[in-house]
Amino acid sequence: MNANDKIFTLPIRLDPAVCAPFPNSRKVYLMGSRPDLRVPMREIVQSETKTSKGTEKNPPLWVYDTSGPYTDPALEIDLGRGLPPLREQWIEERGDTEVLPRFSSSYARERLADTQLAGLRMANERMPRRAKAGMNVTQMHYARRGIITPEMEFVALRENQRLEGLSEALRRQHDGEAFGASIPREITPEFVRAELARGRAIIPANINHPEAEPMIIGRNFLTKINCNIGNSPLASSIQEEVEKMVWAIRWGADTVMDLSTGKNIHETREWIIRNSPVPIGTVPIYQALEKVDGRAEELSWEIFRDTLIEQAEQGVDYFTIHAGVLLRYIPLTSRRMTGIVSRGGSIMAKWCLAHHQENFLYTHFEEICEIMKAYDVAFSLGDGLRPGSIYDANDEAQLAELKTLGELTEIAWKHDVQVMIEGPGHVPMQRIKENVDMELAWCKEAPFYTLGPLVTDIAPGYDHIASAIGAAMIGWYGAAMLCYVTPKEHLGLPDKNDVREGIIAYKIAAHAADLAKGHPGAQARDNALSKARFEFRWQDQFNLGLDPEKARAFHDETLPQEGAKLAHFCSMCGPKFCSMKITQDIRAAAQGMEEKAAEFVRAGGEIYRLA
Amino acid sequence: MNANDKIFTLPIRLDPAVCAPFPNSRKVYLMGSRPDLRVPMREIVQSETKTSKGTEKNPPLWVYDTSGPYTDPALEIDLGRGLPPLREQWIEERGDTEVLPRFSSSYARERLADTQLAGLRMANERMPRRAKAGMNVTQMHYARRGIITPEMEFVALRENQRLEGLSEALRRQHDGEAFGASIPREITPEFVRAELARGRAIIPANINHPEAEPMIIGRNFLTKINCNIGNSPLASSIQEEVEKMVWAIRWGADTVMDLSTGKNIHETREWIIRNSPVPIGTVPIYQALEKVDGRAEELSWEIFRDTLIEQAEQGVDYFTIHAGVLLRYIPLTSRRMTGIVSRGGSIMAKWCLAHHQENFLYTHFEEICEIMKAYDVAFSLGDGLRPGSIYDANDEAQLAELKTLGELTEIAWKHDVQVMIEGPGHVPMQRIKENVDMELAWCKEAPFYTLGPLVTDIAPGYDHIASAIGAAMIGWYGAAMLCYVTPKEHLGLPDKNDVREGIIAYKIAAHAADLAKGHPGAQARDNALSKARFEFRWQDQFNLGLDPEKARAFHDETLPQEGAKLAHFCSMCGPKFCSMKITQDIRAAAQGMEEKAAEFVRAGGEIYRLA
Repeated sequence: MNANDKIFTLPIRLDPAVCAPFPNSRKVYLMGSRPDLRVPMREIVQSETKTSKGTEKNPPLWVYDTSGPYTDPALEIDLGRGLPPLREQWIEERGDTEVLPRFSSSYARERLADTQLAGLRMANERMPRRAKAGMNVTQMHYARRGIITPEMEFVALRENQRLEGLSEALRRQHDGEAFGASIPREITPEFVRAELARGRAIIPANINHPEAEPMIIGRNFLTKINCNIGNSPLASSIQEEVEKMVWAIRWGADTVMDLSTGKNIHETREWIIRNSPVPIGTVPIYQALEKVDGRAEELSWEIFRDTLIEQAEQGVDYFTIHAGVLLRYIPLTSRRMTGIVSRGGSIMAKWCLAHHQENFLYTHFEEICEIMKAYDVAFSLGDGLRPGSIYDANDEAQLAELKTLGELTEIAWKHDVQVMIEGPGHVPMQRIKENVDMELAWCKEAPFYTLGPLVTDIAPGYDHIASAIGAAMIGWYGAAMLCYVTPKEHLGLPDKNDVREGIIAYKIAAHAADLAKGHPGAQARDNALSKARFEFRWQDQFNLGLDPEKARAFHDETLPQEGAKLAHFCSMCGPKFCSMKITQDIRAAAQGMEEKAAEFVRAGGEIYRLA
Repeated sequence: MNANDKIFTLPIRLDPAVCAPFPNSRKVYLMGSRPDLRVPMREIVQSETKTSKGTEKNPPLWVYDTSGPYTDPALEIDLGRGLPPLREQWIEERGDTEVLPRFSSSYARERLADTQLAGLRMANERMPRRAKAGMNVTQMHYARRGIITPEMEFVALRENQRLEGLSEALRRQHDGEAFGASIPREITPEFVRAELARGRAIIPANINHPEAEPMIIGRNFLTKINCNIGNSPLASSIQEEVEKMVWAIRWGADTVMDLSTGKNIHETREWIIRNSPVPIGTVPIYQALEKVDGRAEELSWEIFRDTLIEQAEQGVDYFTIHAGVLLRYIPLTSRRMTGIVSRGGSIMAKWCLAHHQENFLYTHFEEICEIMKAYDVAFSLGDGLRPGSIYDANDEAQLAELKTLGELTEIAWKHDVQVMIEGPGHVPMQRIKENVDMELAWCKEAPFYTLGPLVTDIAPGYDHIASAIGAAMIGWYGAAMLCYVTPKEHLGLPDKNDVREGIIAYKIAAHAADLAKGHPGAQARDNALSKARFEFRWQDQFNLGLDPEKARAFHDETLPQEGAKLAHFCSMCGPKFCSMKITQDIRAAAQGMEEKAAEFVRAGGEIYRLA
């Protein structure tokens, strides 16, 4: 028995800090066209502004909420049973799927039959669902046939920024510059359908993951972020991984990838999926490699195929598949500074060279599509040859693979299977935009899902920052989802604090991209926070931010007294040097500033023509 | 007696952790044309690479070093006496200055005469230096007369990246995209002179700060960063501020601004300047306001003038002067979300409105120039009306002031006084470049010195990240110096850890900008670090990074054993899943990959034409 195995016993419990509601926030639901279509949002309640003329109400702000049922105190959570299957009825109603009498994967059946694993199993028993023979159950398939599913309506409601009750000033925002994107003023279910049909967006929504709240990835929608979790052979347990997942969605992860490579990958994944309200992605080759004891050359299509089915029947929503690592591209990496830095890419390269055969993920690609469409698993076409250093950025190996991913996209689309494309990695700023331009051209606008990129290699320990710079820029240029990087990148397995730091850095990047693209309503939260800041509503300033706890803790380090939350200054400048306080004094004193401004405009200084 | 006063007694001492040399690093000096012209660099020594064919040497890397004598174990430091005055002889030789018999500022004399302050004084006694009557002692003045000063030679040597001994691969870098800049392959003293004469760069080098190692700010040179320190009425002491300064330059601050607004500003500044090897900037209006007990309306030109002279004779290298906050621009801020957020800007606005008179910094600007050129203090023309929120970005108030700063630049240049221009603040990504374009056009390419900008307002507690994104971009577009932001921004006074986090975030931004602009040799450090990473030279990977201590600590959290520093994996992926390890296995196995690559190129897949 391994040390890790002892850590958890049923039922596992969450640290309450991981799922407490945010301060002054409550879970609210937007109702759709049917009673079981309820879209969760977070309402942040604000205090009043005190003015010389009395008080002014500050309406609540509704924000996109990835935290799922965990932050709704009205709901009881039993991790051993998993979350309520909110999509089950929708899937059932479509009548194109059936519940199977047993798992189709031989490996899954072995694990179930292994009595030694009893202590790792969840309390519920569930049977997998699959498309009926000849049926295609992907959201893309429905979209192309003109069907608007409840999932599409759900994401349409979810994507619209809720501006009800906000003043004209809070709604106002700068014009964006969306490179080649066409972001509508209001997201309609029909727009969602059209984008899915066109392949420009995906809703990762495996029929075996009915617990997930639908979300959409595409550059005409809000920029999403992914958080990687997963044990490694050296550290972590199921308990920790489930908690990391709940922790990740608390801070804003839109999807979570389970990259476990350690013990009990199958059971760890089951716990994560059953308890996850966000789509789960995996890299199936990792588990396949575990099955052959880490010997890449012993991998085979049969082992991989069984792994795909095993994971598809558990409910994984998207698979990273490194089908673009072709035998003939591998020599292109020989002059690189850092070789192949994708785990999946290096595994497939090793297999290809050992057998001197073409990558079986490429040669069996159509069969993979057949599996994907029977469960609606989306492709995340892996960039196995992405650059691992600034030196290797945008090189021949990377671009050769990207072109192949474009060809594979067309094959997947022929099967109505949803696709996104993975991207780098490490890229200096001046070469970021061309990555997006090439991806859009070669992969026909399939959503681009990038890892950072890091804009320099010289900051180990701070790679969440080095990569958030590239992530913000690539999101602006058109990447649809940003895979986070933690401060531990290149150094070790991230812990909970690293996960939080990485996610917040990426929420900043994604939101900055939405502002720059001009997503309607995106700036309302900035405006509300700035207004709270200017009015010294400290609690509101903390609560409107991405991490209220840390903002409050930082403030309280020097001014912990409750009274300081009403003070018109902080310890940075003190009372005499607070510019905002002085401005307010000025405004109070200078009656008629408005009139002066109007007068000045009429006088028409030439500066007005510059703005 | 205030609580702060008790904290320090002479002599103050530094925490050894603040000035210990970096691991595997030593101080080296580049020799110039005279024996007292020694330019400090940091040499990072690397270990050998073990290959199947034996060992391969990895030559040491020389990096730009701001840490001064503190990291040279050969030098004794006595904080009470200050650093050796390395420029004294150069200044003396020019024969255009004289040592005064007493301080010219009446306030400075009062402080000296106050026996109660004896416990706050340094051990040395020094008298101020000033230009002889009718003389102009600015570096710009010399440059315009065709003189190459030792300071110019010093920065020329300092700016060149040292690539001696590096392999061809480590020298190789991507082409940059320098917007409108013209970065030469080698920085010569004559190039420095020409840039200074043109006003496109400045060397902040007060003749009363001979302890400083010359450095240059301009967009054809390496991107610089500034770190703010300073006490506030609510926190900190002289001891802490001196230690913060040494701490700041350890991590890479190119200049330090002392923004003290609390007790004993005069004495705090003296300790900082005498012990600082980097240029020191201040905002003199802060101290002037202290002198009138925080009542802005009681400020006067006379008080301000005496403060300028007081600080110029102490050795401040650049002054932020908010001379562009004109009376008629103040009403333009009335419809803003966050009003005036510059402390100096709000003070001057209050004065202007109270007196309904034009800003005395503007009306006395030529007199200020006369003072500046007698000591070679550079202008940092303050953006008193910079935006404090995304909402207010690029508005009329900001742009009106920027145009005025352009007019003031021309006046300063008429006096051969060096100028840089301060910039925002808070700007969404799509509006950053136009800030640079306007500054270059209106301020005739005077160096742009920006605060961030933050690209979103919703991340209190993480504003070092929200602003590092904007900083990297604006540096690429042409800003010459980036003023750092710490995680505590908007929340409280930063402590030592916040200073470190803020500086590293900005070193990342500045270096990313240098890579993107294509500074010759900038990528060598990235390449060396990537090579160390790929070869599992863990210690070298840590040591080549911006923060070796943190990188090592992160690695050691999960794998503390010394043996792990030689392991071909880390806890992130473990031994079986390390892509770099697998790549090396592949390379070892696949003899002849080079030949295959060459063959493939000859076969000529069309992918080769895309790179």
